[in-house]
Amino acid sequence: MSDVFPGGVPEFAPWAGPEPETGGPPCLAAEAAALDAADPLRDRREAFVVDAPGDPEGVVYLDGNSLGALPRGVAGRLAAVVEEEWGRLRIRSWTESGWWTAPERVGDRVGRLLGAAPGQVVAGDSTSVNVFKAVVGAVRLARAAAPGRDEVLVDAATFPTDGYIAASAARLTGCTVRAVPATDVAEAAGPRTAVALVNHVDYRTGRLHDLPGITGALHAAGARTVWDLCHSAGALPVGLDASGADFAVACTYKYLNGGPGAPACLYVRRELQPRFDSPLPGWNSHADPFGMDPAYTPADGAVRGRVGTPEILSLLALDAALDVWDGVDLGVVRAKSLDLTDFFLRCVERYVPAGRTECVTPLPHEERGSQVSLRCAGAGDVMAELVRRGVVGDFRRPDVLRFGFAPLYTSFADTERAARVLGEVVTSGPVR
Amino acid sequence: MSDVFPGGVPEFAPWAGPEPETGGPPCLAAEAAALDAADPLRDRREAFVVDAPGDPEGVVYLDGNSLGALPRGVAGRLAAVVEEEWGRLRIRSWTESGWWTAPERVGDRVGRLLGAAPGQVVAGDSTSVNVFKAVVGAVRLARAAAPGRDEVLVDAATFPTDGYIAASAARLTGCTVRAVPATDVAEAAGPRTAVALVNHVDYRTGRLHDLPGITGALHAAGARTVWDLCHSAGALPVGLDASGADFAVACTYKYLNGGPGAPACLYVRRELQPRFDSPLPGWNSHADPFGMDPAYTPADGAVRGRVGTPEILSLLALDAALDVWDGVDLGVVRAKSLDLTDFFLRCVERYVPAGRTECVTPLPHEERGSQVSLRCAGAGDVMAELVRRGVVGDFRRPDVLRFGFAPLYTSFADTERAARVLGEVVTSGPVR
Repeated sequence: MSDVFPGGVPEFAPWAGPEPETGGPPCLAAEAAALDAADPLRDRREAFVVDAPGDPEGVVYLDGNSLGALPRGVAGRLAAVVEEEWGRLRIRSWTESGWWTAPERVGDRVGRLLGAAPGQVVAGDSTSVNVFKAVVGAVRLARAAAPGRDEVLVDAATFPTDGYIAASAARLTGCTVRAVPATDVAEAAGPRTAVALVNHVDYRTGRLHDLPGITGALHAAGARTVWDLCHSAGALPVGLDASGADFAVACTYKYLNGGPGAPACLYVRRELQPRFDSPLPGWNSHADPFGMDPAYTPADGAVRGRVGTPEILSLLALDAALDVWDGVDLGVVRAKSLDLTDFFLRCVERYVPAGRTECVTPLPHEERGSQVSLRCAGAGDVMAELVRRGVVGDFRRPDVLRFGFAPLYTSFADTERAARVLGEVVTSGPVR
Repeated sequence: MSDVFPGGVPEFAPWAGPEPETGGPPCLAAEAAALDAADPLRDRREAFVVDAPGDPEGVVYLDGNSLGALPRGVAGRLAAVVEEEWGRLRIRSWTESGWWTAPERVGDRVGRLLGAAPGQVVAGDSTSVNVFKAVVGAVRLARAAAPGRDEVLVDAATFPTDGYIAASAARLTGCTVRAVPATDVAEAAGPRTAVALVNHVDYRTGRLHDLPGITGALHAAGARTVWDLCHSAGALPVGLDASGADFAVACTYKYLNGGPGAPACLYVRRELQPRFDSPLPGWNSHADPFGMDPAYTPADGAVRGRVGTPEILSLLALDAALDVWDGVDLGVVRAKSLDLTDFFLRCVERYVPAGRTECVTPLPHEERGSQVSLRCAGAGDVMAELVRRGVVGDFRRPDVLRFGFAPLYTSFADTERAARVLGEVVTSGPVR
């Protein structure tokens, strides 16, 4: 039972006319078509399984910031991995099909999209597990230089798992955790700070934080940084190497389209690798993993971030999914992302009656990720109705509608339709 | 360059005759055929992609203890997951396709094969990561009862990753690690022992340890047990609930045929679950994961063992792979396993000249897993030649040939051929 529509979600009349009932100037469909025609990334959409923008039965998918759409190349590649590599070659595939080195190979492909030179990123394990490696590793590094550092700063608005894991890492290393708004982290860092764990883009509001600036301030305070790139990887240029970031964790199933629960990636800055002391020293990170040595000797390089045997099917699906990025310039992606979110905000202004939604995503480009979050009364039911009408975003409690714009496959026509249907829903529905 | 064949691995003459050149009584092929005809599990082989036993071009696969063969149902199911669940339903699949609850659902399916009632096993993460959760969890439990317990006992012959991870868990919880042969763990446990981490079946020798007996002795000493079931899960009845084991970790890509790097499983005994304090409290283990609460409240039950978003493609491949176990009685599996290894040992005795190999797997049934390990001079090169001749086992340094017998698809004809080819290789090759 809905708490917004006490009698159950009502039936809405289908949208029939070319103009929104909110009135106002002509709709923006023609402008969307012109923007799509001029889009340098428009051909990339064909690499994905998504409905045609003009298809009235089709779905507008604006939830690629939660689960990216399926790249067309994945199914065939995964079938070959299963039938040929696992089915026929079996154990030989660890060497002959390159399974053993896939975490580093895939890591380097993701690394290019994060502004990281090869040899610093490894794929495997979940975001949460990688946050644990990074926070404990960062605390140990900071303490090696200054043993008194016993504080872990955490972005107060973080996606919760980072906070839970940071608290566990702090407990196990004898630190305390202090939650601080991301915008205040730079100022909050002091002589006791070992590390700050910050989200590059806030998952709820879409706010983009100043990665180089905060990193520089943390370094000036003698502390380390762990960046959560879940909502920026594949959405905008991250520039890890250029920023001096120490550690970073990236999700690959959002804008990188790696598939449900695709393995996360861990970045450890090259000069820190020899001192990276992982709390999860599994055999895959051993210098001689098949030596079966009872004593642990860590491998050099990004491999040190590995733990146990990687989930190869998920990992190689990600590998195949990354093909859509070949030859793509993140600068072009960023430009389209900002054009999409700007255009969406204009469409919302045009189609949605004033006061029905409030944008919580910052308007300045330098503070905006690749999503638009709108506060809206009855957001849960509004999103359910949007989904019923073929516009898929998501809902974050208590009252946020989240629309993610994946520049490789989201069109301006999708964007216009989403705002138009949103206007229709909030106008016709008994939303409080 | 080989260190056994300094001039390179020589060409071996192909095996031509029906009788091994070692002479002796007639070969055991006819007996193998009779044993296969009487095998109650013989129809299960058809559920796997394996070559026909009589096919001279076919491969005898005795490495299912490293990577299980491909069940035929996996490819179709995985294609549907990719194309329909990810490709079409996308984010809706978390609820509509049951992705969100898959770790517990798959865990329960594995649990049945481990003698665990539903609600105690969860699938996800690697064996190493699960060993970490279990060892830290066990230390915390033991200390809650007796704060002075600061010792972690580790099976001295353990697969190395367990030792590395136990050392990390000990370091983070202020414990020390003591390596003890598995057979001595029961006696070694004392008032300072928090937990013992023991392999149910030794990966190298195939020795089966006394899970109920060691568990009982540990409990009598006030300590907890973590069992590594990697080489027993799917090979023999484990009887977790009946034994009183506290924690266990099982690999699913060996005898359970879940695919390369398939997610491991964590068992936490039901009565311990409310006190299980995981060191990896990711959002998937939260009581209300979509509440986005900054404070961590652990879920009840097996879910508490989860961490981050599960790698769904690998997890659902495992789910499909488990279909081959429907209706299978582990007692029948165990009986066939022992018949296979007994028969292999007889074949080795018949075909391999005395003194060329030495069996390091215990002969008493109650001490034998589902593999046979033979020490052999030049084992690395012998295995390479066996593989070239279509018999796939594996090699563990420094001198062990490992042959795994997966009762669902290994035939007695396979077994006879493997020993026969082994006899041929060690007879004709210049093995020192």
